[in-house]
Amino acid sequence: MTETLTKPDLDTVAEVAAQLRVDSVRSSTSAGSGHPTSSMSAADVLAVLISRHLRYDWDNPDDARNDHLVFSKGHASPLVYSVFRAVGVVSEDELLNGYRRFGERLEGHPTPVLPWVDVATGSLGQGLPDGVGIALAGKYLDKLPYRVWVLCGDSELAEGSIWEALDKASHYKLSNLVAIIDVNRLGQRGETDLGWDTAAYARRAEAFGARVIRIDGHNLTAIDEALSEAEDDSDERPTVIIAKTVKGKGFSEVEDSPDWHGKPFPEDMAERAIKELGGTRDVRVRGPLPEGEASDGGARGQAGKVDLPQYEVGEKVATRKAYGQALAALGAANPAVVALDAEVSNSTYANEFAQEIPDRFFEMYIAEQQLVAAATGINVRGYTAFASTFAAFLTRAHDFIRMGAVSRADLRLVGSHAGIEIGADGPSQMALEDLAMMRSVHGSTVLYPSDATSTAALVERMAETRGISYLRTTRGAYPVLYGPDEDFSVGGSKTLREGSDVTLVGAGVTLHACLDAAEQLGKDGINARVIDCYSIKPIDEAALRSAADATGGKFVVVEDHHPEGGLGSAVVESLLSGGRTSLEVEHLAVRGMPGSGTGAELMAWAKIDADAIAEAARRLADRA
Amino acid sequence: MTETLTKPDLDTVAEVAAQLRVDSVRSSTSAGSGHPTSSMSAADVLAVLISRHLRYDWDNPDDARNDHLVFSKGHASPLVYSVFRAVGVVSEDELLNGYRRFGERLEGHPTPVLPWVDVATGSLGQGLPDGVGIALAGKYLDKLPYRVWVLCGDSELAEGSIWEALDKASHYKLSNLVAIIDVNRLGQRGETDLGWDTAAYARRAEAFGARVIRIDGHNLTAIDEALSEAEDDSDERPTVIIAKTVKGKGFSEVEDSPDWHGKPFPEDMAERAIKELGGTRDVRVRGPLPEGEASDGGARGQAGKVDLPQYEVGEKVATRKAYGQALAALGAANPAVVALDAEVSNSTYANEFAQEIPDRFFEMYIAEQQLVAAATGINVRGYTAFASTFAAFLTRAHDFIRMGAVSRADLRLVGSHAGIEIGADGPSQMALEDLAMMRSVHGSTVLYPSDATSTAALVERMAETRGISYLRTTRGAYPVLYGPDEDFSVGGSKTLREGSDVTLVGAGVTLHACLDAAEQLGKDGINARVIDCYSIKPIDEAALRSAADATGGKFVVVEDHHPEGGLGSAVVESLLSGGRTSLEVEHLAVRGMPGSGTGAELMAWAKIDADAIAEAARRLADRA
Repeated sequence: MTETLTKPDLDTVAEVAAQLRVDSVRSSTSAGSGHPTSSMSAADVLAVLISRHLRYDWDNPDDARNDHLVFSKGHASPLVYSVFRAVGVVSEDELLNGYRRFGERLEGHPTPVLPWVDVATGSLGQGLPDGVGIALAGKYLDKLPYRVWVLCGDSELAEGSIWEALDKASHYKLSNLVAIIDVNRLGQRGETDLGWDTAAYARRAEAFGARVIRIDGHNLTAIDEALSEAEDDSDERPTVIIAKTVKGKGFSEVEDSPDWHGKPFPEDMAERAIKELGGTRDVRVRGPLPEGEASDGGARGQAGKVDLPQYEVGEKVATRKAYGQALAALGAANPAVVALDAEVSNSTYANEFAQEIPDRFFEMYIAEQQLVAAATGINVRGYTAFASTFAAFLTRAHDFIRMGAVSRADLRLVGSHAGIEIGADGPSQMALEDLAMMRSVHGSTVLYPSDATSTAALVERMAETRGISYLRTTRGAYPVLYGPDEDFSVGGSKTLREGSDVTLVGAGVTLHACLDAAEQLGKDGINARVIDCYSIKPIDEAALRSAADATGGKFVVVEDHHPEGGLGSAVVESLLSGGRTSLEVEHLAVRGMPGSGTGAELMAWAKIDADAIAEAARRLADRA
Repeated sequence: MTETLTKPDLDTVAEVAAQLRVDSVRSSTSAGSGHPTSSMSAADVLAVLISRHLRYDWDNPDDARNDHLVFSKGHASPLVYSVFRAVGVVSEDELLNGYRRFGERLEGHPTPVLPWVDVATGSLGQGLPDGVGIALAGKYLDKLPYRVWVLCGDSELAEGSIWEALDKASHYKLSNLVAIIDVNRLGQRGETDLGWDTAAYARRAEAFGARVIRIDGHNLTAIDEALSEAEDDSDERPTVIIAKTVKGKGFSEVEDSPDWHGKPFPEDMAERAIKELGGTRDVRVRGPLPEGEASDGGARGQAGKVDLPQYEVGEKVATRKAYGQALAALGAANPAVVALDAEVSNSTYANEFAQEIPDRFFEMYIAEQQLVAAATGINVRGYTAFASTFAAFLTRAHDFIRMGAVSRADLRLVGSHAGIEIGADGPSQMALEDLAMMRSVHGSTVLYPSDATSTAALVERMAETRGISYLRTTRGAYPVLYGPDEDFSVGGSKTLREGSDVTLVGAGVTLHACLDAAEQLGKDGINARVIDCYSIKPIDEAALRSAADATGGKFVVVEDHHPEGGLGSAVVESLLSGGRTSLEVEHLAVRGMPGSGTGAELMAWAKIDADAIAEAARRLADRA
């Protein structure tokens, strides 16, 4: 049995560093893929960090006092897993036989299937923004002294999201955040934009408000001093350590070579590498434990009963406003609820929350990637974060939302100003792709209520929903349809009108148009069924199937969205999922490129208004 | 008739500035919406620019020598259109009766429906990245001395994309690019992140490699000197002019007030504003004309016949490799073809082009937003730009792709490493949402070939395709299916096997699985039809309908993508678009969260391999 050393001296740390390199070589060669050279450049920094600075109880990864370690350069996964072996939580057997293999947890890029991984990385430029979220939680919510250590690659500093992250880190004075940049000069296909110009990186990080420390990333003493300096958080700035390193460091055949990115060494090379690195080792080290009493949570406390806002049937209320009011009510009842917005809170109505509960509201300014990443990081600490902006601008964060699913994060996203209904502002502000985007995210929930009552109820449901959930809200005010006692559930729907000739399916603004169309059709003797399909994913398959039976498979599906991937797709895919089905579907959606106008003018132009729905229903009813 | 003054003195420019303010007030009040105060802060800068510096022939907006003027702060559209009135291309009547009205061209945010607008803006942080693309075209492709002037808001400097843009602008020494930041301190809902801290903006822009000039944005002499200095491009850096301004400048009731963002003045306030600004005016000004001979193009020359690569049926070639080879062939034949990549050209195989034609290849490093924006800007000058990265990482640029459609840009996007087929790298690198994303873009074309021959042919088709087109390529090498004389068209398909029992629809890697499944099924006496659905949007409705007739509406649709919004959606939406249809569909897609493994292991796990397809087909065939 191997002894575990706690806070060893630098000679031992050098042994740890060599072991991390050897294990990075062994694991990637065993798997036949992976990034050994990108791991070797950062091995010295990680050896010092895990041995002498990271305060982490490896046996209790859920301890709230633990520091957080995020590998923003997720492709250095051989290093991640070699670290986990060095601290004694992953075995040599798993490292050599599990890495990148089917059904195993040591995936090609780290994900939270491992208890020591907070967020999935591998799409570059995301780990640091996520780390900002964790640090926000530490400083403002948990109010615990843990640190967030993020290892970044140099290539990923070309991603704008890194600068959004540093901007917010300095704005929020996140002295508990330490970014370590592994400047090994080489990206996937040659030299990076800035190469070894660590002075240029330093100027940029300083200009964005960070305390910058430049070091030789292979000098253990310098690393140790830099990490100690980073632990002094008296000056209220995030720290950026710029470590000049050599890719493939420790194996002379590949050091600083542009030809060895993302390639495991063949067996014979691996043997030579291990030999040059002094052979395999079996060192166990751990850094200091967190101070104070063990804890499983921050300052969250108990949730009380939610006193949702109530609305009178018939009064006109915008669903975006109901969102804000419900969120404020939720926040008042539940100290775990947090809200974020991207400088449009007076449009999304997240300001209703911000005004009531300013200490749990985070202004992310116009930086939608960081908005979603901050929510992801805050969720790491168990908070229930809602993030809002215009629905159109959530497309800016698509990669972060996708990765949020890989991170197994519970994200509640809210997009206002959906569709052409917004009118005069024109197409740049109109979300016409958001339902397709959000439906395609793994395990997502997509909600699109039509009135204030259902919006408020669904906001409460979202707080309980795991995975990525999305609420689409409308700019304009429309009549409240439901009384306060009506129930709404994820996967539900409401059949607002029974009918036998044709089914009209709407959601959001188009539901109101469906109801108007049904009135028109009634006068013509056409009996239209109307479904409020407020839950687009999961969708109420049973209700749709009943409707198909009742109306001979005749449907008009109407959406304020492009024709692809939205409500229409959800309805027909659901109806076809249960075996042979005979359908006659009129799918009304926004097929042209809109300009400006009033919402009503544009809905008439796109043929998604009541007249167009009635006309489509008549076409269906007239056929046999 | 009003005299047009060319390069007037600063006293006249002051009159122009007052007119721009008055017209911004009048247009927004007449429309009942818009952003007068955000227009008024930048009126002095624009007055000097259009009167004395912008080299532009307003009567010939297509003249290749013209400077370019991009309003990255697109919400300042009252100012944009007031400028167009001041230079005499938009009438007072249109300004007062057309702005933000249905069917009119003065949309809420500027779009290229106007001949003097290069790119649509309104999603913040995009105009400057687009401007980088135009400047790249000017310096490296057209080799013409035009300048690109971009007006940015201060709020949008929180977008990471702005820093991606400045990074590339300095990397490529774009001294022909001038960004003017209108630092009016106030965003939509209060003070911006940095307020009036122009020194902080200056440090950041300088650190990112720009020459920075700080001025009082209401001092006409200072503005004039700064613009003159920006015209001296001897030091090979982009110029950033940081103009400290006052929101609502010129109307004391709203100056520097946080309560007047995005709100038109009521009639009585508008009257007071116009009075304070000295009343309406009818000044006409233009800056200098471009120098030299008129020209309608740069250095493009004539396209020759494309000598596409040829492949032998049965040889194994990755479609990503065929993409690179075809692109190089296209580039050799056509001097308008340009390629860009986000530091993964050795994976996407864009390096085949880069090696052959380095002077028309732009490395964008790991900055996917700037990748797409650069292609958009380069397209402004009429070049045929292809932009490639991993398909998963194109989600990073979703908002730019969406806005590309509003810009009426022709963008050719290529995403490699689609789906779980990639194997060991794991979910962060697997594109499983890209088809849904690209299908939902207005007017898009989505192609997903299965073999090298069809890939090469479709790359040539893409070069001729308008709007946003997307090619999805596969990591692994699969057998070539088609001989070199086979034709492939946008909207086409290939029926590779006739059959009467069931239709198998695949694309990309799943087509090979369909072919294998059909072999298996044949041994069981089940006669499967196989369709290569290489054009997913538009889709070959006629071929699908024939298949429905031939196989009794029985379909197995298989895709290496999440179930929502991809091939399955496209097939069923197409089949249901023509009236009553009876279908029995087995939709095989990636429904779980993948880990690592081999491509074959993962395809078996997801049940999208040949065995799963055959099993699904048997279920369909066994039923009546």
